Amino acid sequence: MILLLGASGYVGSAFCSLFEKKEIPYLAVSRENSENYAADRIYALIKETGATFLINAAGYTGKPNVDACEVEKAECLLGNAVLPGALRNACEVANIPWGHVSSGCIYTGRHTDGRGFMEDDAPNFSFRTNNSSFYSGTKALGEEVLNGANQCYIWRLRIPFDHRDSPRNYLTKLMTYRQLLDAENSVSHLEDFVTACLACWEKKVPFGIYNLTNPGTITTREVVALLKQHLTPDKEYSFFTDEAEFMQVAAKTPRSNCAMDTSKSEAAGVAMRPVHDALIDSLKNWQPAD
Amino acid sequence: MILLLGASGYVGSAFCSLFEKKEIPYLAVSRENSENYAADRIYALIKETGATFLINAAGYTGKPNVDACEVEKAECLLGNAVLPGALRNACEVANIPWGHVSSGCIYTGRHTDGRGFMEDDAPNFSFRTNNSSFYSGTKALGEEVLNGANQCYIWRLRIPFDHRDSPRNYLTKLMTYRQLLDAENSVSHLEDFVTACLACWEKKVPFGIYNLTNPGTITTREVVALLKQHLTPDKEYSFFTDEAEFMQVAAKTPRSNCAMDTSKSEAAGVAMRPVHDALIDSLKNWQPAD
Repeated sequence: MILLLGASGYVGSAFCSLFEKKEIPYLAVSRENSENYAADRIYALIKETGATFLINAAGYTGKPNVDACEVEKAECLLGNAVLPGALRNACEVANIPWGHVSSGCIYTGRHTDGRGFMEDDAPNFSFRTNNSSFYSGTKALGEEVLNGANQCYIWRLRIPFDHRDSPRNYLTKLMTYRQLLDAENSVSHLEDFVTACLACWEKKVPFGIYNLTNPGTITTREVVALLKQHLTPDKEYSFFTDEAEFMQVAAKTPRSNCAMDTSKSEAAGVAMRPVHDALIDSLKNWQPAD
Repeated sequence: MILLLGASGYVGSAFCSLFEKKEIPYLAVSRENSENYAADRIYALIKETGATFLINAAGYTGKPNVDACEVEKAECLLGNAVLPGALRNACEVANIPWGHVSSGCIYTGRHTDGRGFMEDDAPNFSFRTNNSSFYSGTKALGEEVLNGANQCYIWRLRIPFDHRDSPRNYLTKLMTYRQLLDAENSVSHLEDFVTACLACWEKKVPFGIYNLTNPGTITTREVVALLKQHLTPDKEYSFFTDEAEFMQVAAKTPRSNCAMDTSKSEAAGVAMRPVHDALIDSLKNWQPAD
């Protein structure tokens, strides 16, 4: 059985749906019954339940968006950098494998020669490069805390979306924001992502970091073109002139926009669909919120 | 009455001694009865006890030295950056003033024109400048977490010492380390430091950051000369050739060596003795460990 932290969140809920579909037994670990995620309590839960795998889908992303992390700094550090360390300790003492949902938001842009970022590239959007949001800083620290961990997967998600209308869904965001910033990004179809995470464990691929985005990149304008084609033919979308205007008008802290290299996950046999296929599939099967 | 966190530590013990000497009522808050220092538990303690001031002398410094923080990263972040944020929340909701023991170890060297670092100088030995120990990174993040806090003192300590032999005492360290690195530093006499902290509150000096080191700086070789003069006339002290040799032979992570400007605390009327006076006084009244 699998212990799942952060089960009530956007990513955690997708893990729950996948486990139910595949009839995999799991226990959702709430913040309350883990006593603020203390390592000894997590260790005890592993022993009590006989869990053979643990997934950390808990994290602090900020509501309604990443700007909130500029205010709630301590909570953000606790959720994104301290908690992974406590889980590492618990899983290493219990000697079970586990996986941590990290983020590609620790990068910005792409390599000067055009390549996307690889798993072992040093973050270039973090506290250490002193150009990032507080959120990205804490996610990069979370990966530092897990450096050298035993039996640990680090799964990097980027800008999740699927076919279900939700305030956390990238497609919903694009349809509801008053104004958009055009940027090129690697993005992750949510079900593709959790399926790839679980496949890492099921297929026993080597432990380590995996960029789990849909192969390829897409610009905001390209996604808007798909939205108009499939879902909102009459809606007018408005764009900021550039990032400077976006930062001045709409944001408190810089956003990560980046291209990820997915060749490692492809070679390991846990590849996701090409990004355009995943986006079009989500739009064709769009389910409005109730 | 005062709530004191970290009362069992080196700095916390000095606060306890001071409170007892001055007959100031206080309660030592242990990690256990504060449930990992959760903000709501601290808030409840403030309300239960009617505390009118809180002092945070808790922190994660690494045993036997700061190199340990390179391994225990999550604990270090929790103790030095998350805890201050929880205390800030608790004290702001309870509307009481409080003080946090920070560190001058977020700086290295001195200004190019020779001046020491002022309270509002940006740290130059931190995650953001990407040249520091993990410990210094977390202490600088702790100050970031407290940026803009209400009714909050941030007291910067540096390399504490006094007349009592102790593994945490700078003078004991110099007498027991096999080899020393010559460096220039501002340092803090422990009783002078806690007295200055308390004076901030008693004298109602404006809230904010205070460098609480003994005015002036001293080099390791100068301290060794004083040690030989007053305490260990026959002992031979051995020095590393330079910092490169020190890093290669004895250390895993760089140390902060820096000069602090103390004019703000002097102007506020919470000055400490000149560094040479405090050192000579400690050596003349030296108490060996039992």
